[in-house]
Amino acid sequence: MTGPVDSLPTVANNPHWLGYRCVVCDREYEPGYDGFVCADCGVDGILDVVYDYGAIAASGRVIDEDLGGLWRFAPLLPLRPAADHSAWTVGDTPVHEAGRLAAHLGLRTLFLKDDTCLPSASLKDRASAMAVARARQLDIHHLACASTGNAAASLAVLTARAGMTCTIFVPAAAPRAKLAQLVLHGATVVPVDGSYDQAFDLSLTEIFKHRWYSRNCAHNPLLVEGKKTAALEMASTLTGEFTGSDEDLPDAVLVPVGDGCIISSVCKAFRELHKVGVIGKVPRVIGIQAAGAAPLAKAWAAAGKSPGELSGREILAAVRPVEAETIADSIQVGIPRNRVKAWRNVASCGGAFLAVEDETIVEAIGMLARLAGIFAEPSGAAGLAGVTAALDQGLITKKEKIAALVTGHGLKDPGAGMAKGSIPVQ
Amino acid sequence: MTGPVDSLPTVANNPHWLGYRCVVCDREYEPGYDGFVCADCGVDGILDVVYDYGAIAASGRVIDEDLGGLWRFAPLLPLRPAADHSAWTVGDTPVHEAGRLAAHLGLRTLFLKDDTCLPSASLKDRASAMAVARARQLDIHHLACASTGNAAASLAVLTARAGMTCTIFVPAAAPRAKLAQLVLHGATVVPVDGSYDQAFDLSLTEIFKHRWYSRNCAHNPLLVEGKKTAALEMASTLTGEFTGSDEDLPDAVLVPVGDGCIISSVCKAFRELHKVGVIGKVPRVIGIQAAGAAPLAKAWAAAGKSPGELSGREILAAVRPVEAETIADSIQVGIPRNRVKAWRNVASCGGAFLAVEDETIVEAIGMLARLAGIFAEPSGAAGLAGVTAALDQGLITKKEKIAALVTGHGLKDPGAGMAKGSIPVQ
Repeated sequence: MTGPVDSLPTVANNPHWLGYRCVVCDREYEPGYDGFVCADCGVDGILDVVYDYGAIAASGRVIDEDLGGLWRFAPLLPLRPAADHSAWTVGDTPVHEAGRLAAHLGLRTLFLKDDTCLPSASLKDRASAMAVARARQLDIHHLACASTGNAAASLAVLTARAGMTCTIFVPAAAPRAKLAQLVLHGATVVPVDGSYDQAFDLSLTEIFKHRWYSRNCAHNPLLVEGKKTAALEMASTLTGEFTGSDEDLPDAVLVPVGDGCIISSVCKAFRELHKVGVIGKVPRVIGIQAAGAAPLAKAWAAAGKSPGELSGREILAAVRPVEAETIADSIQVGIPRNRVKAWRNVASCGGAFLAVEDETIVEAIGMLARLAGIFAEPSGAAGLAGVTAALDQGLITKKEKIAALVTGHGLKDPGAGMAKGSIPVQ
Repeated sequence: MTGPVDSLPTVANNPHWLGYRCVVCDREYEPGYDGFVCADCGVDGILDVVYDYGAIAASGRVIDEDLGGLWRFAPLLPLRPAADHSAWTVGDTPVHEAGRLAAHLGLRTLFLKDDTCLPSASLKDRASAMAVARARQLDIHHLACASTGNAAASLAVLTARAGMTCTIFVPAAAPRAKLAQLVLHGATVVPVDGSYDQAFDLSLTEIFKHRWYSRNCAHNPLLVEGKKTAALEMASTLTGEFTGSDEDLPDAVLVPVGDGCIISSVCKAFRELHKVGVIGKVPRVIGIQAAGAAPLAKAWAAAGKSPGELSGREILAAVRPVEAETIADSIQVGIPRNRVKAWRNVASCGGAFLAVEDETIVEAIGMLARLAGIFAEPSGAAGLAGVTAALDQGLITKKEKIAALVTGHGLKDPGAGMAKGSIPVQ
């Protein structure tokens, strides 16, 4: 239901939300802390949202039947809107069991979590929904981010639904067609004469100056909580809303990795469900990077047998910036801002990071389209693209239950998969 | 759940499905009739699916709680699959109350049924879902249609999910990017050296020759039944699944019109819900055509005060072919093949046909994006584009509850709405 901001339902804190903890130095903050990153560690000190898991377990519920979309999982989210609204009630996307695609890859079981059908056609809507709800709670009516892609489209769509406004900071070289779509939704687009990093830095300066709300996911820890709902939904779908057996839960989940936000959210979701006692195992979460933008996969390979033993500062030092170049623009990231959170989460669930070539990603687009009827953009197919490499490296086996997250629709970049499609002439 | 064809759940007839009736001569046929059109009237003799409404009313239910997506309305559909499957369980899309957009247009209440989030990003998935289910029932594994647009994409996606195959007949001038997407999904694309009409005719010849299943909606009457579920869902959403008051039902629904299939389905849905006694009124359904492709709107205006009194043959004679030219390619139709069914349905609910200029459609794309956060392709915005003309002509009033169907995603034609978007420079 769309209306002016003051008619939006109210939004309250989850009483079991304790606050934040810095992923580098472990310093803790109250829920009301508005600095986004750790006051001691600066931009590297990404915060993690912390809950009272004992209290949630004692409450006996992780599903809120009164709300729809991602808010069904309000007991494991920092916020709870008083009611649904088209500006923030997104989610409830399908999990497909892709039998023919599994057989083609030699797997026994393959699940695909299909987030291509969200309002702006990517998983990023889960983060934007959280941002809009938080802005409503704080009585802030203007949001901003630095992005040329899915985050920008998502913010433009959901602020339009909320009756809020937004500013998008983009590198001047961004494709004008993508920018025009943002303007169509009413966003103010600010071209920045420089790189994405410079656009990001300018966005932070302006956000603080104007007291806007930040929808920069690698900076605002609440947004990872929104993204967490993709995995919460997957687990819920495969266990009959946690009332049935958890034997259909995947043994491993493959997730595309750019800044490291989505993979952090997936690991956190399963670990939290396990902590509060509604699932009996935590899948290994495997991060797939494009070979041309694989700082995490490179550092992980170099870390030897015990990557989980690195401290936050050691992870910061181990993950070296690269010149990122890949067809999968949504994960074309030279230095993942959420690398510490991503690394720690992946290590804690027995996962790993891998890299795949662009040609493998293009092949995965074709396999998804032909054998599962899902049209994915390159980054959206990157998770699936990691299956063969993960098998080769012994990170998964053919008899296990494997899941992949499909994060964005192919209509966002329709040319990317087309090299495989030749048109027969009658 | 995707798997090989023989692992698809079985599909049965609705026991209350009586058969078909020709819209021109009223001749009746059994459910097993496989001629698609009337044996006496030929291609003009489109059939209408007929149910035993008394028996459905007596059964006391129009919702089947055991199935998902559009199959929740199986009691009002010709078929019922034994279980859900990703190849045919689509639907359950949101109805947004668009408060700011209503205020902008001077309306008190505006509902938007948002079918942009279906798997292939258009309402056509509802028809393809029915086609795939019927093919499964008939043990036919290959489907075909003539189309360059949404119907083709939809058929390619859902046959891929079913493990079936399909052939798409396209005019040779069709954009190659759109064709490549079909090939990516595994469709066989057959370019026809000629117009859409010639591609359509060739598709019928080949379908009969090879005993494929026809997914040509203006020809196969079961597909309109699938499309009917958009309006069934809208009514269900606005009445608490028919358990609450029906005071939120729209007084009028605006629907884009090309071949006349979707508008036929919308009228039929509301009339059937009324016949079986679960709603107390039938909205007036108003068909919106692009001014450059408006044979129905022109004939309706010329028909004077009693368009409802025309016989099937008189309607065939009254609706004259035009040279169709509009930005809204999905409704760029020179002679609507389903014109008799569309005309009769619209007349029976007190509706009308109207034409709007392309500029008005482009403005509607911008209004939807900016004030409701929905990105629509031109034909998808055409229903909303008719609001002002409908007000001017007294077909709706500002105090009434108005609904519009948004039928396809803007990412299918991202350039169309962009004329309105100018990018500010910092």
